[in-house]
Amino acid sequence: MLKILPKIRRPVRCLSAAVAARNEGFAKVMQSDLLAFENFLGKDGVQKDDISNHITDWTGQFKGHGSVVLYPKSTEEVSAILAYCSRNKIAVVPQGGNTGLVGGSIPVHDEVVLSMNKINRQFSFDDTMGILNCDAGFILEELDNKLAKLGYMMPFDLGAKGSCQIGGNVATCAGGIRLIRYGSLHAHLLGLTVVLPDEQGSVLHLGSSIRKDNTSLHTPHLFLGSEGQLGVIASVTMTAVPKPRSVQSAMLGVESFKKCCEVLKLAKSSLSEVLSSFEFLDADIMECLKSNLDLHPVLSKSTPFSILVETSGSNEDHDMEKMSAFLDECLSKNLILDGVLAGSSADAANMWKLRESAPLAVTRDGYVYKHDVSLPLENYYELTNVMKARCGDLAKRVVTYGHLGDGNTHLNITAGKRCEELEELMYPFLYEWVVAHGGSISAEHGIGQLKLPYSNLGKGSEERLLTKKLKNIFDPNGILNPYKMI
Amino acid sequence: MLKILPKIRRPVRCLSAAVAARNEGFAKVMQSDLLAFENFLGKDGVQKDDISNHITDWTGQFKGHGSVVLYPKSTEEVSAILAYCSRNKIAVVPQGGNTGLVGGSIPVHDEVVLSMNKINRQFSFDDTMGILNCDAGFILEELDNKLAKLGYMMPFDLGAKGSCQIGGNVATCAGGIRLIRYGSLHAHLLGLTVVLPDEQGSVLHLGSSIRKDNTSLHTPHLFLGSEGQLGVIASVTMTAVPKPRSVQSAMLGVESFKKCCEVLKLAKSSLSEVLSSFEFLDADIMECLKSNLDLHPVLSKSTPFSILVETSGSNEDHDMEKMSAFLDECLSKNLILDGVLAGSSADAANMWKLRESAPLAVTRDGYVYKHDVSLPLENYYELTNVMKARCGDLAKRVVTYGHLGDGNTHLNITAGKRCEELEELMYPFLYEWVVAHGGSISAEHGIGQLKLPYSNLGKGSEERLLTKKLKNIFDPNGILNPYKMI
Repeated sequence: MLKILPKIRRPVRCLSAAVAARNEGFAKVMQSDLLAFENFLGKDGVQKDDISNHITDWTGQFKGHGSVVLYPKSTEEVSAILAYCSRNKIAVVPQGGNTGLVGGSIPVHDEVVLSMNKINRQFSFDDTMGILNCDAGFILEELDNKLAKLGYMMPFDLGAKGSCQIGGNVATCAGGIRLIRYGSLHAHLLGLTVVLPDEQGSVLHLGSSIRKDNTSLHTPHLFLGSEGQLGVIASVTMTAVPKPRSVQSAMLGVESFKKCCEVLKLAKSSLSEVLSSFEFLDADIMECLKSNLDLHPVLSKSTPFSILVETSGSNEDHDMEKMSAFLDECLSKNLILDGVLAGSSADAANMWKLRESAPLAVTRDGYVYKHDVSLPLENYYELTNVMKARCGDLAKRVVTYGHLGDGNTHLNITAGKRCEELEELMYPFLYEWVVAHGGSISAEHGIGQLKLPYSNLGKGSEERLLTKKLKNIFDPNGILNPYKMI
Repeated sequence: MLKILPKIRRPVRCLSAAVAARNEGFAKVMQSDLLAFENFLGKDGVQKDDISNHITDWTGQFKGHGSVVLYPKSTEEVSAILAYCSRNKIAVVPQGGNTGLVGGSIPVHDEVVLSMNKINRQFSFDDTMGILNCDAGFILEELDNKLAKLGYMMPFDLGAKGSCQIGGNVATCAGGIRLIRYGSLHAHLLGLTVVLPDEQGSVLHLGSSIRKDNTSLHTPHLFLGSEGQLGVIASVTMTAVPKPRSVQSAMLGVESFKKCCEVLKLAKSSLSEVLSSFEFLDADIMECLKSNLDLHPVLSKSTPFSILVETSGSNEDHDMEKMSAFLDECLSKNLILDGVLAGSSADAANMWKLRESAPLAVTRDGYVYKHDVSLPLENYYELTNVMKARCGDLAKRVVTYGHLGDGNTHLNITAGKRCEELEELMYPFLYEWVVAHGGSISAEHGIGQLKLPYSNLGKGSEERLLTKKLKNIFDPNGILNPYKMI
């Protein structure tokens, strides 16, 4: 039974069952449905046992419910599933690598899981134009490895790259650490094959397989960040980027947040075309890395803020020269207290280990409230200070790291264990503060279940009405990924 | 009266009146409507005389009809116009700089022209994040000049930049010569204010003003290339790019088209992050430039193909070194017959003058059939050869230039004067050939009126149905830019 929580008390880490009551308009999956699925997928295409890793997210934060996982092996089989479910009003959750952070890819009540794990055969790459065409179930790292042999790479990099799938990357408009250089997936998407949840399981080839096509509405882009609300992505056509031959990293120690912003401005101007990352860590996450994971800063002096700058280019001498000149200018302009340029890949790995271990370090405090918001720079770190003051001793730590170059902060608030008093202080205050200061309550992780209670923040009623109308065109019965984003 | 032409005989340069009959469901503009417009726009917001430059396109190719041009000065006035026209079923054509090449921005029968010329007050730029927010009526060059003072530039460059407006650039998803470097406008768009043609003239603020926002469908991207079919763009939020401090150009002479593709591949690999243009000219356009405009090639040898390569970077020494190494490798691998690196801005200007004068040079033959298609590289130049063989002596010249790095060819077929026999040979053959060979019938110019007869080529019936449904959500009465794209 649905437990109604007053909005102000809703914890961000609510169990999914608290999000919305089951829509009784949906049919429950019966034995006859399972037989029908087996009929067009084969017995090995229908899994009823040992499905816990498909109905729970990888963090264990979202525990969903469900009784069956389907494994289509082709677009035609995806179409057959969606046509059947549409005609029989069975709700469906499309699932890629199930690596999301907002509970978007697991069933809430009893939705059928449509896993894309076996849709990973077709792969082609034009190494003159740099155009990739592949099935949606390919794992990001697999694609990156295939492209590396051809001198190219995927234009984004995620912590989950060993498990996440390209179809899910499109559906979530995945960001990552190199967005400052290569842009979002909007910069790269050319075409999609999608299957609609209508009574025909319509297969649409949207966009094209060439770089420029201005002959219709650019509908593929509507699927970027659509979180499985509009259709199931079966294949993706996108551009890849030349693989850099030189990657340089430097760690900078900075005295004030204002100076961090000045360093960013200088990096954009003087590193310009080779700047590929501009990551931020405050002293509290550095302290957390030290005490929880025994990871020590690479700078000799302890500084209030650290910045990890990366360049990616085609000529090592040029990139080193640019990076050295940039560091010299930072020092001569008194923008940084300290700076180290990685002299070896081991040095660089040590720097990146600090940034990449931050999500793990915070979990060791016991319980962590993670956030993924973006803000105009003038308010970026103010949020941290405001939350520190607000949470007081109830929080064990208030730490911040993130993609400063994109205005994206991962503010983490830890406690020894889950604390309802702290949650009441934090929510919805934090999200309302972000929106009141010109930010977004979800920079890159999406809405899913986690942020559904706050999804009206920052979006006007007209925009929300528009998205509902759009959803209705693609999914007239509303069977696709219910109880989430839209 | 509508003259029905059999499809195979439809000339590409059809007069707009031949495209579609007037939709008698639309009201004609009456004196009472003009008074109503004057009432909410003031007398200076309603122009009835001397409107020929608003109802004819700049090439003179499309001569439309209409009796009134409205000049709103604010989003609220745009909203008032669209609400009024929606309630009274008056058709409306949104118009920016009116620099399009497919007749998309002029009235076909008697639509009211909604000019954005006076919506150009609000301008702001965040020079740390590189985010521009401005009214839709700003001229591209004006924006570029404003950004130059802050160390940034617009991420695209068009021949029409002195007249075209940023709102129109979004509506047409303008391409240009630097797409290979900075990507399409999808890479840069963050948010839009749009006014819908509904009975409230709804004003929607879509997307956001920060780099990352993953909280809703990414609806602003649906307006890129929408050609004024969905709503009127009132303001634009997008990223700009750091202005390069060094721009280098080189002209290469190449023996075969196959080698041109190999040069492209090498340029992407070795010029990599600084490659900003890769333009193509064949010997016939070079000959045309010489005989029609007295412009001579910069290479001493005459070669079947010429390539203009440009780099844009932050360090002149590095860029020159990369360009020299690239040219050396082209020579040592026997990919080029000749190559010249511009030693001065005058040298570079001479090279670019050849490429930029090509559209003018062809007009001097008398009559020109222009094309803007994209193709996979293996078919890029085959189209030229096929059309040469097909047109034979009926054509004066068959010449090709274009953005080879994007697979975008501007094939031009000239004649002394308009020639119906030639048209019958060309259309629909040319567009059908393009689609049969994996290309797009409009790479960057859009559909408008010009390509409406062929707009079903390359797009499936399901995709076309989808775009009609999408149009209907935004424009339920179909009053916005009728007789065109959708």
